[in-house]
Amino acid sequence: MEVEGQFETGERLTRMHHVAVTVTDISEAIAWYRQRFACRVLYQDDSWGFLKFDNINLALVTPGQHPSHIAFTSTFEQVAAAGPVQSHRDGTQSVYIKDEHGNSVELIHDPSP
Amino acid sequence: MEVEGQFETGERLTRMHHVAVTVTDISEAIAWYRQRFACRVLYQDDSWGFLKFDNINLALVTPGQHPSHIAFTSTFEQVAAAGPVQSHRDGTQSVYIKDEHGNSVELIHDPSP
Repeated sequence: MEVEGQFETGERLTRMHHVAVTVTDISEAIAWYRQRFACRVLYQDDSWGFLKFDNINLALVTPGQHPSHIAFTSTFEQVAAAGPVQSHRDGTQSVYIKDEHGNSVELIHDPSP
Repeated sequence: MEVEGQFETGERLTRMHHVAVTVTDISEAIAWYRQRFACRVLYQDDSWGFLKFDNINLALVTPGQHPSHIAFTSTFEQVAAAGPVQSHRDGTQSVYIKDEHGNSVELIHDPSP
């Protein structure tokens, strides 16, 4: 579920948690990126891959699961203030909003260290 | 110009330089992101905006100028090895390739400190 328009997060966010791009085959896409980039696979299944680079993570998502998006590191309170909280398989909690031009922006709370 | 398929960069790349999303009005988009995020405007004109976050930059691009893409920090030699080098208005040099699923991936050499 995506919330259009305004949201209030209190303190403004400064760090991008991940970028997500859409691919139709997670396994093939992970192979493509690993062959060319020095990244580490944090998570992989049939519908989602998560690659760690030095300064950010790259999510590989399948159409219908998630849109392509950019995600900013947030506290749980900031996520909850922006809209209905979704819990994800890796323990994160987030909300999807859209910017004025239709780009999907996720605010994500990641409890992992 | 985008080069399909294979490229050789020698040492594999580890750092994402920026993410670019498409918007139709740069000025409005910069206002939207600055209102919500603690980012700094590095560059702004009618067809391109560049915002600095703690760990990465966000490019705002207009349709037809550039596709939405992810860009990885590269040496000039790595850019040149991957395809025809394009020089950009901010002094960077890059090449656009595509992953196997049609996502645009830029290799960029940024000579700024």
